[in-house]
Amino acid sequence: MRLKLAIIGFGVVGQGLARHLVSKRDYLRSRYNLECDVVAICDLKYGSIVCDSGIDLARVLKLVSSGGRVDGYEGAAKGLSAIDVINQTTADIVVEATWTNLETGEPGYTHIKRSLERGMHVVTSNKGPIALAYRELKGIADSKGVFLRFEATVMSGTPAINLGLECLAGAEIRCLRGILNGTTNYILTEMGRGVSYSEALRRAQELGYAEADPRADVEAWDPTAKIVILSNVLMNADLKIRDVERRGITDITLRDIDEARRRSRVVKLIAKAEKIDGRVVASVKPEEIPLTDPLAHVDGVLNALTYVLDVQRDVTIIGPGAGGDSAGYALLSDILAIARYLT
Amino acid sequence: MRLKLAIIGFGVVGQGLARHLVSKRDYLRSRYNLECDVVAICDLKYGSIVCDSGIDLARVLKLVSSGGRVDGYEGAAKGLSAIDVINQTTADIVVEATWTNLETGEPGYTHIKRSLERGMHVVTSNKGPIALAYRELKGIADSKGVFLRFEATVMSGTPAINLGLECLAGAEIRCLRGILNGTTNYILTEMGRGVSYSEALRRAQELGYAEADPRADVEAWDPTAKIVILSNVLMNADLKIRDVERRGITDITLRDIDEARRRSRVVKLIAKAEKIDGRVVASVKPEEIPLTDPLAHVDGVLNALTYVLDVQRDVTIIGPGAGGDSAGYALLSDILAIARYLT
Repeated sequence: MRLKLAIIGFGVVGQGLARHLVSKRDYLRSRYNLECDVVAICDLKYGSIVCDSGIDLARVLKLVSSGGRVDGYEGAAKGLSAIDVINQTTADIVVEATWTNLETGEPGYTHIKRSLERGMHVVTSNKGPIALAYRELKGIADSKGVFLRFEATVMSGTPAINLGLECLAGAEIRCLRGILNGTTNYILTEMGRGVSYSEALRRAQELGYAEADPRADVEAWDPTAKIVILSNVLMNADLKIRDVERRGITDITLRDIDEARRRSRVVKLIAKAEKIDGRVVASVKPEEIPLTDPLAHVDGVLNALTYVLDVQRDVTIIGPGAGGDSAGYALLSDILAIARYLT
Repeated sequence: MRLKLAIIGFGVVGQGLARHLVSKRDYLRSRYNLECDVVAICDLKYGSIVCDSGIDLARVLKLVSSGGRVDGYEGAAKGLSAIDVINQTTADIVVEATWTNLETGEPGYTHIKRSLERGMHVVTSNKGPIALAYRELKGIADSKGVFLRFEATVMSGTPAINLGLECLAGAEIRCLRGILNGTTNYILTEMGRGVSYSEALRRAQELGYAEADPRADVEAWDPTAKIVILSNVLMNADLKIRDVERRGITDITLRDIDEARRRSRVVKLIAKAEKIDGRVVASVKPEEIPLTDPLAHVDGVLNALTYVLDVQRDVTIIGPGAGGDSAGYALLSDILAIARYLT
């Protein structure tokens, strides 16, 4: 089958997807009988191009990697805003990969809503709209008979959402417990090796794991958005970010970590959602966990999620939680899922 | 949607599925809009019943758990063989849950083949036919336009196969490494605590993890069949059981385990499939692995599988690998997947 894509947001994640689409073109065709034509790319920084006959992604990637803008590409319509592109594109799937805003969800929220309203499938890596407005957006998708998929929003290319939603269908999830933020897990892991908090944070920034303003991570806003997404999608909750008890790692000291070690425990920033009396209660906070817990050995920037189920013992998935290649792959896996359901 | 099922093989696994279908009837209806009617049950030990209007599973489970046969059930046709049932049933899906035979694949092989030829979907927990004849059976399924699913054959209800096939679609699997047999992992874990091999085996037998004749486990036939399935299904190989380098745990001593520990390593029975020069090479043998390997902390009867991918860092899944509830749930998850694709 042939699918036309519009990519809104061409930063690290959008480019990650584009690279996979280039390098895997033959593989996708031979293994899945799938051809993906990107008919629009739109980015606040790099400009926008629209070309219904398909954009040469290798050329665009080259332009961008050599410091150019996507609208340096010849033979395409230019100058349209994201919302213009969404209103006009002939794409089957809109890939929404703009930045996350956990307060308003914008501009992703409007992009996704409008795309769904126009009857296009949406695949997104944008946590904001899914954390803030999942029910509303899913309702529009359902009423239009299109897919809204967002594997990339939690644990990046590690399929935490699709695992819970599809592979574990039929099981009731009683509790989710996970390490959903790589930056803080890296810092805590370094602290476990005796490095101070400030030095570990500095290293995380140097390695590109933490932003110059690290609050989204160390104050746990990022994993809070993720546990809201998981709760609402996998446990049928209707949580808002403010409903989650949230505590970051800024007041964790080397002494806390030492004391935990003396009790054969490690300190991890644990995101948790639990069904209590039929209600889902969620929290993100540092916890001391025993070494027998699979999460205890998840170190560095790795993420992990444990599903506590009604039908059998726990299932845990461990894998990367960030990175352009990984998030770009998550988008691709969602596109493939849509292709699978459409055929 | 309404799906009619025929259950062939009503041992621990078939009964596990039946229990879930009873306890989850309302949940499946409300959450997935799915009604499952079991129209035939057939078992060499318990007899067979056929009832196109649907069998009361709670009644059948009660009969069997109180020492009776399924054909003590009133109001159904009786006395048919499994193959007669398959030839006559009006089921949409045949659930093949008879015992595993790794030499001939029978009787599961014939059950599955005939069911597919009749244009019925098949869901199975039977390793034999999938390890021995996956390509042939998948070919028949494809030519008939029906599904052949077998999540339960590897890691039971932990979705090792569907994760690789669906959630990780689009990623090329370069290597699979796993702990795919709970009995041997239990024995090795006990040995890590200083218990001798023979004593650990005795405990495993006492706990029902190992058979009276434990060779399928300790000589690694069971994980060998599983790595063949994973290789052929997820890595597009065409391996036979004899192609796998196989070494069990019977000659592992406490000294081996102690020496590994001195090197900060643990001994695990590792099933592995790796692409080498475009060819898939598989082995199952005890290996010393470092404590930084997520598999190192998978203890007792737990199973685990690591997917080494081209698109991002490794993904590992950990969960139960056996048990009637777990395998029965795996069958249910496959039935739900079929329902999802059909709607």
